[in-house]
Amino acid sequence: MRIRIDLSYDGTDFRGWATQPGLRTVQGTLEVALATVLRLPAVTVVCAGRTDTGVHARGQVVHVDLPEETAYDLLGRRLNGLLTPDVRVRSVGPAPDGFDARFSATWRRYAYRIADAPALVDPLVRGHVLAWPRSLDVAAMAEASAPLVGLRDFASFCKRREGATTIRTLLDLAWERDGEGLAVAAVRADAFCHHMVRSLVGCLLAVGDGRRAVGSPAEILAAGVRDPAVRVAPAHGLTLEEVRYPDAAGLAARADRARARRELP
Amino acid sequence: MRIRIDLSYDGTDFRGWATQPGLRTVQGTLEVALATVLRLPAVTVVCAGRTDTGVHARGQVVHVDLPEETAYDLLGRRLNGLLTPDVRVRSVGPAPDGFDARFSATWRRYAYRIADAPALVDPLVRGHVLAWPRSLDVAAMAEASAPLVGLRDFASFCKRREGATTIRTLLDLAWERDGEGLAVAAVRADAFCHHMVRSLVGCLLAVGDGRRAVGSPAEILAAGVRDPAVRVAPAHGLTLEEVRYPDAAGLAARADRARARRELP
Repeated sequence: MRIRIDLSYDGTDFRGWATQPGLRTVQGTLEVALATVLRLPAVTVVCAGRTDTGVHARGQVVHVDLPEETAYDLLGRRLNGLLTPDVRVRSVGPAPDGFDARFSATWRRYAYRIADAPALVDPLVRGHVLAWPRSLDVAAMAEASAPLVGLRDFASFCKRREGATTIRTLLDLAWERDGEGLAVAAVRADAFCHHMVRSLVGCLLAVGDGRRAVGSPAEILAAGVRDPAVRVAPAHGLTLEEVRYPDAAGLAARADRARARRELP
Repeated sequence: MRIRIDLSYDGTDFRGWATQPGLRTVQGTLEVALATVLRLPAVTVVCAGRTDTGVHARGQVVHVDLPEETAYDLLGRRLNGLLTPDVRVRSVGPAPDGFDARFSATWRRYAYRIADAPALVDPLVRGHVLAWPRSLDVAAMAEASAPLVGLRDFASFCKRREGATTIRTLLDLAWERDGEGLAVAAVRADAFCHHMVRSLVGCLLAVGDGRRAVGSPAEILAAGVRDPAVRVAPAHGLTLEEVRYPDAAGLAARADRARARRELP
């Protein structure tokens, strides 16, 4: 019996998502809470987006396979009673046939938030908004972002993993000022490779405050090798906001496609 | 020479605004930072709204009188360099003639934020949003609030202070759902007495989740005595959002009126 759990967390005091022996991680914390509530020896969850140390989530999705006939109607409430306030279960329910939190996802959307003036720096949200000491030209950042959107090889902006492709479909890399005046990037892709959002943001920050030309991110992408001048932006400005899945009919087909290795046309 | 400073703070780790020996308060922290930056033996600031322990501010305003010829153009930057990240100076500038942060204020506006469903509880904002275990009828809370607006004696909702009046002009006590779905009260008055906003919110929470009748807050107000059944809502949901002042011409007149004792007609 497969269950879908939607959850949010403040990544500040976690060493990222993935379980690591002796370290406090979101996966480890959730798995221990599930095993405790369900009186099972061990539980393994699979998530949509494995966030790094210090990265937050408002819309993380996981699935977990439980023994048939497990009662899950009070599971969310019981988990929240056990978990610390920095991780909250938003909802629990049966997963539709063919649902896989990781491989069924159509896209993931992250937000990166920046306060680039003293009057915008709000202590109440300092845990998930980057304070930047120079003012940013958001229009220039949007212009520099446009050529990066599409099916591309993001090798220049990724931490390489042996044998893994760095080809992804970047669906959105949009910059705007929100209602408070913060500079916010909405970054949406079929999937992300390691450090990709934070490397893109780090490169675009340099465009925004005038240290790099508007055309430079596209040149770095085209070069296809990691540029040591591209700084990875701090983790705490980044939040996994939403993961989208196809409707029931498209679920299994989507998982097959996601498992296939991506290639450029 | 009088200077106006606008500041924000996360009240979590402060024992409120007012200086207290041996305790970390916002006023004490700001005064020490000002004295250090300006190389003065001591500095005293006057604020618009003396927030309680755990209450936050996005729009606190203070004034401070400094020796003539004090250079203040870099003061904001130097203060922010010295202060901890839970208090930020938003702006510093010369105060107009007749300006008094406390007595010139036309009104103060607070917000009280509540997440009343598991899906609304966001760990990223848990420091300034109250998580409430039952869902709230915001329309009923708005209906119950309406008769409280106006020039009233708020003795039923205030912690009494010897010799001080509890008469205030409540300009707004409005409830609505914000973009995220949180229940938010916007509470605006010429001034507030001690615990007034949190007592009003505490009483209205009981209306919102069905424990009290819609007419009960107006009855409690009319009774004119503190009702032990009215619980003071937790501090961390409350934020001082804005303080409004008249234009230069109205400043001195406003201060004279504010110093006069309020009376019911």
